[in-house]
Amino acid sequence: MTSNRFRNIPPAIRSRLRACRARIQQKSLDGYLVTERTDQFYLTGFDGEDGAALVLSDRVYLLTDGRFGEEAQRSAPWARAVIRTGPIGEVLAPLVRKHHLKRIGFNPDHVSVAAHKSYAKAVHPARMVALPGLTREFRLIKDASELEALAQAIRIAEKAFLDVMKRIRVGMTERQVAADLQHAMLLRGAEAAAFPTIVAEGPNSSLPHAVPGDRRIRRGSAVLIDWGAVFRHYRSDLTRVVFIHRIPPRFQHIYECVLAAQAEGIRAIRPGIRMCDVYQRAWASLEAAGMARQFTHGLGHGIGLDIHEPPSLSKRMTAPLKAGMVVTVEPGVYIPGFGGVRIEDDVLVTETGARVMSRLPKDLDSMVV
Amino acid sequence: MTSNRFRNIPPAIRSRLRACRARIQQKSLDGYLVTERTDQFYLTGFDGEDGAALVLSDRVYLLTDGRFGEEAQRSAPWARAVIRTGPIGEVLAPLVRKHHLKRIGFNPDHVSVAAHKSYAKAVHPARMVALPGLTREFRLIKDASELEALAQAIRIAEKAFLDVMKRIRVGMTERQVAADLQHAMLLRGAEAAAFPTIVAEGPNSSLPHAVPGDRRIRRGSAVLIDWGAVFRHYRSDLTRVVFIHRIPPRFQHIYECVLAAQAEGIRAIRPGIRMCDVYQRAWASLEAAGMARQFTHGLGHGIGLDIHEPPSLSKRMTAPLKAGMVVTVEPGVYIPGFGGVRIEDDVLVTETGARVMSRLPKDLDSMVV
Repeated sequence: MTSNRFRNIPPAIRSRLRACRARIQQKSLDGYLVTERTDQFYLTGFDGEDGAALVLSDRVYLLTDGRFGEEAQRSAPWARAVIRTGPIGEVLAPLVRKHHLKRIGFNPDHVSVAAHKSYAKAVHPARMVALPGLTREFRLIKDASELEALAQAIRIAEKAFLDVMKRIRVGMTERQVAADLQHAMLLRGAEAAAFPTIVAEGPNSSLPHAVPGDRRIRRGSAVLIDWGAVFRHYRSDLTRVVFIHRIPPRFQHIYECVLAAQAEGIRAIRPGIRMCDVYQRAWASLEAAGMARQFTHGLGHGIGLDIHEPPSLSKRMTAPLKAGMVVTVEPGVYIPGFGGVRIEDDVLVTETGARVMSRLPKDLDSMVV
Repeated sequence: MTSNRFRNIPPAIRSRLRACRARIQQKSLDGYLVTERTDQFYLTGFDGEDGAALVLSDRVYLLTDGRFGEEAQRSAPWARAVIRTGPIGEVLAPLVRKHHLKRIGFNPDHVSVAAHKSYAKAVHPARMVALPGLTREFRLIKDASELEALAQAIRIAEKAFLDVMKRIRVGMTERQVAADLQHAMLLRGAEAAAFPTIVAEGPNSSLPHAVPGDRRIRRGSAVLIDWGAVFRHYRSDLTRVVFIHRIPPRFQHIYECVLAAQAEGIRAIRPGIRMCDVYQRAWASLEAAGMARQFTHGLGHGIGLDIHEPPSLSKRMTAPLKAGMVVTVEPGVYIPGFGGVRIEDDVLVTETGARVMSRLPKDLDSMVV
């Protein structure tokens, strides 16, 4: 029975488990307690909240609760679901004894001080050993099935945007546009919006994380829209600024400068370049235009199962980009009280350079709706 | 200047800060580092992600990043925004020195093992001291402004549900119904859906956390819908099962039993009763109907800034309910492969008993659409 079960592990999962187990072994651990929900999904295909997975050298336990028992069986029939009615430690302890585990790894970036204390007590005399980012190196590099899901998440977001741009009208509120966009994404096949959609009219767009409200779209409005879709758990992230009927005077220049900075950033992307150097290229482009001080955030971030995940295209990151990473490139210029422009696309680092996965037009003329 | 600033603290925030400061002082702490986003909002009115608030006896610092600087100023002009470009420890350290802090509290249930290590290093020789749930006791009891926001969040969810029930049709997919419901909530004034809307047709409804998919609604379908809205950051949570044109045979009995169990639970609610006893009353009602084994989760949970927050109406919780708590009451019966029924309302514990805040009909006849 056991061998049959194991034969049914999907190939992508099998290869991720193999990579993680090599790391677990290399650190002389007997197992690893996966507590991040996205990591649990990445390593098992099961997406139950509040659960954990115990990865051992020859098997995986899903420590879930009654609400998710049937789902755990469906999504990962090859794994062993253990239904808990209390804290994780209660089901962890007997498994540690049964398999004579001595050292169990955990992620110190995710496990809270209190949870760690309770695990440590439960497994005693075995030890909980901090091993940050078990999956991190692997999740940085997207495999074929992940790229396919991301491509779909991007395509859904793009189609939904075009659906809504056909219907956007003077007098609509930011909230209505955001509602329509989220609705269109769901109808186009998204599992959810990847994050709360931002629609910011005029001066509101100077807040990089504006919340859509009752401001109405006017003729001559600049409207910043930042949105994304979830498809098979993977998240896209795009931003466009659209101009209603005409481009407000000062915006044209800002828009062109931000677009040029984005192009510079994308042009810099290739395997081996330091992340901070990609940031720097876009920053220098804005600096030459006298706008670098209004560029108040990083240039981009990884996307995947999380909407913000490593790598980070920011000025302190000296690590190199690698083929298979997918990042946003999203320079922005924000002028409090006036408005902001951000242009964001999703970019795959290829063996030779970069491939922009998103395809929505962004030349100035196309942005007038 | 300082005194003017302080006079402008909104009264609800002022009273929350006062309560928390009393607790901080009682534990001989010089300040507290608030790292949970909802706690930060509760204590300051500012809702920036990835930030933290340092609460001292006479002032509050918001340790935020460039994306949220303008928002911090707008939402909490009386607080001091400190813009950080690196980890929180970098801005925390100089503040600890400036104010000669010796013992800084933190929440061990939220701060990760790694973050704790970095804070401890940054503030040395001052100490980070674990004090769980600084706001927990206070957040359990909703004040007038919170009850008002919750009431609106419930009302919006209810109106949206009625909007969509007018349009639900044979042939629609679960996904379409979920999309329409989320859209209707946003148009009705929700900031967001409180959580991904569940729409589960037929056998799918036996998964307490089903994900809406491409299953179509048929004549005679039972459709379980679990949804909620966010209004001013507060979250409602409701569940109904609707029957399309007619009630499938076996469902009628299950529905009536679940409804009776919910009524039993609600009837039990009053200040002073133990949470587990409320659970027990609903459980006993299902037990008498021979369905207790199919009731696989707790009876309910607190709602507020988080969709799941204390208290918990579950069999292990021996703490008493108190006036001002708001809980869901949501018994469910799940039969794998066949379907499930869950009925959920939001209930305020009053001085004398309970007030059901949600008003949607739930008698069996009203559920046929």
